[in-house]
Amino acid sequence: MNILYDERVDGVLPDVDKAVLLRTLRTRLPNLEVLHQREELKPYECDGLSAYRTTPLLVVLPRQLDEVQGVLRICHELRVPVVARGAGTGLSAGALPLEKGVLLVMARFNAILHIDPDARTARVQPGVRNLAISQAAAPYDLYYAPDPSSQIACSIGGNVAENAGGVHCLKYGLTVHNLLKIEILTVDGEHLTLGADALDSPGFDLLALFTGSEGMLGVITEVTVKLLPKPQTAKVLLAAFDSVEKAGRAVADIIAAGIIPAGLEMMDNLAIRAAEDFIHAGYPVEAHAILLCELDGVEADVHDDCARVRQVLERAGASSVRQARDEAERVRFWAGRKNAFPAVGRLAPDYYCMDGTIPRRELPGVLQAIAGLSTHYNLRVANVFHAGDGNMHPLILFDANQPGELERAEALGGQILELCVKVGGSITGEHGVGREKINQMCAQFNSDELTLFHAVKAAFDPGGLLNPGKNIPTLHRCAELGAMHVHMGQLPFPELERF
Amino acid sequence: MNILYDERVDGVLPDVDKAVLLRTLRTRLPNLEVLHQREELKPYECDGLSAYRTTPLLVVLPRQLDEVQGVLRICHELRVPVVARGAGTGLSAGALPLEKGVLLVMARFNAILHIDPDARTARVQPGVRNLAISQAAAPYDLYYAPDPSSQIACSIGGNVAENAGGVHCLKYGLTVHNLLKIEILTVDGEHLTLGADALDSPGFDLLALFTGSEGMLGVITEVTVKLLPKPQTAKVLLAAFDSVEKAGRAVADIIAAGIIPAGLEMMDNLAIRAAEDFIHAGYPVEAHAILLCELDGVEADVHDDCARVRQVLERAGASSVRQARDEAERVRFWAGRKNAFPAVGRLAPDYYCMDGTIPRRELPGVLQAIAGLSTHYNLRVANVFHAGDGNMHPLILFDANQPGELERAEALGGQILELCVKVGGSITGEHGVGREKINQMCAQFNSDELTLFHAVKAAFDPGGLLNPGKNIPTLHRCAELGAMHVHMGQLPFPELERF
Repeated sequence: MNILYDERVDGVLPDVDKAVLLRTLRTRLPNLEVLHQREELKPYECDGLSAYRTTPLLVVLPRQLDEVQGVLRICHELRVPVVARGAGTGLSAGALPLEKGVLLVMARFNAILHIDPDARTARVQPGVRNLAISQAAAPYDLYYAPDPSSQIACSIGGNVAENAGGVHCLKYGLTVHNLLKIEILTVDGEHLTLGADALDSPGFDLLALFTGSEGMLGVITEVTVKLLPKPQTAKVLLAAFDSVEKAGRAVADIIAAGIIPAGLEMMDNLAIRAAEDFIHAGYPVEAHAILLCELDGVEADVHDDCARVRQVLERAGASSVRQARDEAERVRFWAGRKNAFPAVGRLAPDYYCMDGTIPRRELPGVLQAIAGLSTHYNLRVANVFHAGDGNMHPLILFDANQPGELERAEALGGQILELCVKVGGSITGEHGVGREKINQMCAQFNSDELTLFHAVKAAFDPGGLLNPGKNIPTLHRCAELGAMHVHMGQLPFPELERF
Repeated sequence: MNILYDERVDGVLPDVDKAVLLRTLRTRLPNLEVLHQREELKPYECDGLSAYRTTPLLVVLPRQLDEVQGVLRICHELRVPVVARGAGTGLSAGALPLEKGVLLVMARFNAILHIDPDARTARVQPGVRNLAISQAAAPYDLYYAPDPSSQIACSIGGNVAENAGGVHCLKYGLTVHNLLKIEILTVDGEHLTLGADALDSPGFDLLALFTGSEGMLGVITEVTVKLLPKPQTAKVLLAAFDSVEKAGRAVADIIAAGIIPAGLEMMDNLAIRAAEDFIHAGYPVEAHAILLCELDGVEADVHDDCARVRQVLERAGASSVRQARDEAERVRFWAGRKNAFPAVGRLAPDYYCMDGTIPRRELPGVLQAIAGLSTHYNLRVANVFHAGDGNMHPLILFDANQPGELERAEALGGQILELCVKVGGSITGEHGVGREKINQMCAQFNSDELTLFHAVKAAFDPGGLLNPGKNIPTLHRCAELGAMHVHMGQLPFPELERF
């Protein structure tokens, strides 16, 4: 039995005859690469959230658009669910395969089709890596702004599917704000264009609807992104604080001063020590919290803003404020932050990365509550986050081999996400819902809202064949959780106790 | 017969017993103000596009949320179509009433509920005027960025429904980029929240989907917008050119130089003369085209950018470049632009305002083509537009009392919009589709795309009661046009010949 897709609450999937499917694929798409042996399927069992694993029925690796179309048509005819996958770096098990489904790997569509420096756009295939777009645009002094920490590896198709963010999205927005147009194939293999090359597009905004829809509405086959001129200069300030609350208040003060930093990141002591030990970024290891504040633009402006931010930081009680001396030090400061996850990963055998958002003003209070929860569950929590836009990434440290620790980590994580919802935030900022947070969606939305989501899903995919069991929970799943909740009256997400 | 809603191609509307509807409204909502006499209905026959007029069955003017809910429930039960209306300033007949429908006027919901200077948000009712939000935020040095020319009068609910723009949307985005959350009532009166106070929101992006949906998906009852800090300073440059093509190229050069102006507007000679005559803005009346380029931000930055823009303008062949001496002159420069429509309106008894978008690089070519079409149809065209983001507003001058002029104006307008689609642009940048451009949507989208729009519409409003006949044409309407197109082989939108 597959515990990750639970037919009892997620809906019954059609039974598939693997031999028939394989034969049909081979007959109609003779050049398509298909993996079907157990050992071939192994590498595709999970995405970046490796705690969730399922062996797919089949993996297909198309190279041509008509192969993708063919796979979708065949799966539609035979009623086989399809899960699309890019680089597999997602952190919410959004590309987790199904035992009864085909995993459609888009990684080979990795061509940069056109860079238009006048229109400031790049037209690329979905398997192109995020960073590769900026590299291709660099000769024109342009770049693609959203920069998730996985940007070396993650693909733009996955970025669109998850509406990825990054350390610069406070100023430059999420993926949805940096897109012009996408080409998609619908569940039955029909080709559509969403968005336009020009400003806005009439009709309903299906481009925004599709962005962040986690593979439930169609398969992305081409992406046109906006490029931005590289800022003339970028400077970063590193401020140390003797309490996380002071750092949290400094964040609010910077924003209140009318400054929009290119990045405004916070790390607590555990994260600082881990990153320093791993990267030697030059962080003050005694500080209870640090803020990294990047300012970019033209020279004179940045100079002026740096002085203002320094003043705000000092008034907020920073024990020290340092500006990166040169570009090498600036890159080092950021390397510590961008490698905070793997760095923290060295402190314990396992960690569980959360991705909640909260209104900025709630920062100090939420941080205090997390500290309390950490003590209560007796598990260390490192806090790393995009402070400027209220997107927190608490990392819960545990050892899955110690009896009870995984359960405690999951319970603690659930409590943190419920806290986010309670203060007016949400259960995900940029990593998506995927399979991981499917239950927390029941806390985030009521049944009317979920019903509307299902109606929209049905407009694109009436048979429910695209990535079922992710992103939008069935009402049945929520009812089940709700019933258990009332019955047991304990944890907000009681199914976590079943692990 | 109502020529504006054509049941033959737009779908048959339910027959409504006005007496039963009136009695039901009065019984169940005794405090609701209902207009039903012919002379009371007269002022509500059109919105800002007065060429399109229909007398509504009834007008309701609720003051309480439960009245709006009650109206929707009653109309849902009795199968009566509902058209929502804000301030009625829309320019695409999006709030044009239906003979068989209720006009739901939301103008009395005009309270500013909360300004939160820390979170930089304003929570307001849908009837609040666009400018009133900035006025309420002014004590905190904040403002609401999107500024349509009608900002004194237009309401924020209408801005959301049409995804309104303005002269500053090149830098600060359209309405959709400045929204956090809306409250809506569905067609059957159910209350839903779309979006969230925090960054992003999980699930499908229904907030973006709803924005610009022109009243087809639900009724907006509350809006939470983002506020921005007022820029420290703003300067405007006025450049004169001896050809519109040169001005068009200067726009591309400014963008290519990596500068993002707060506004970048262009006017041709006819518009310049009209505005100067009306407002005395100080425009050079001999110029074939002028550009207004506003730069905002901190003092040092703006100073630097002004120098760079001046250099670009001079290299592009500007015959003169003037910077507004002081704030009074800056405001005067903008007043000319913001009043260009009424100013041009003084040149001829009637004018027809277009709203196409094109990729920026196509600007010089499209301007030349418009000049050619103007000669061909023997009608003057004044060009006023948001050059920076490729959103054109050609104003076609005509006299409806001269036989054949209205027909020629409509035909010329259709040709301009088809030209926009042909060069990769769209038939509307910020005014919406409404009833006005319903036929051009058949040129913009193919039947697969329109089918998907209808499926999305059905997810929200399966009975098709909300604003039918606007925004998304029926396939039947497009087929009819297409058939006539093939048959007659002349105009792209042959029905225009029927006027």
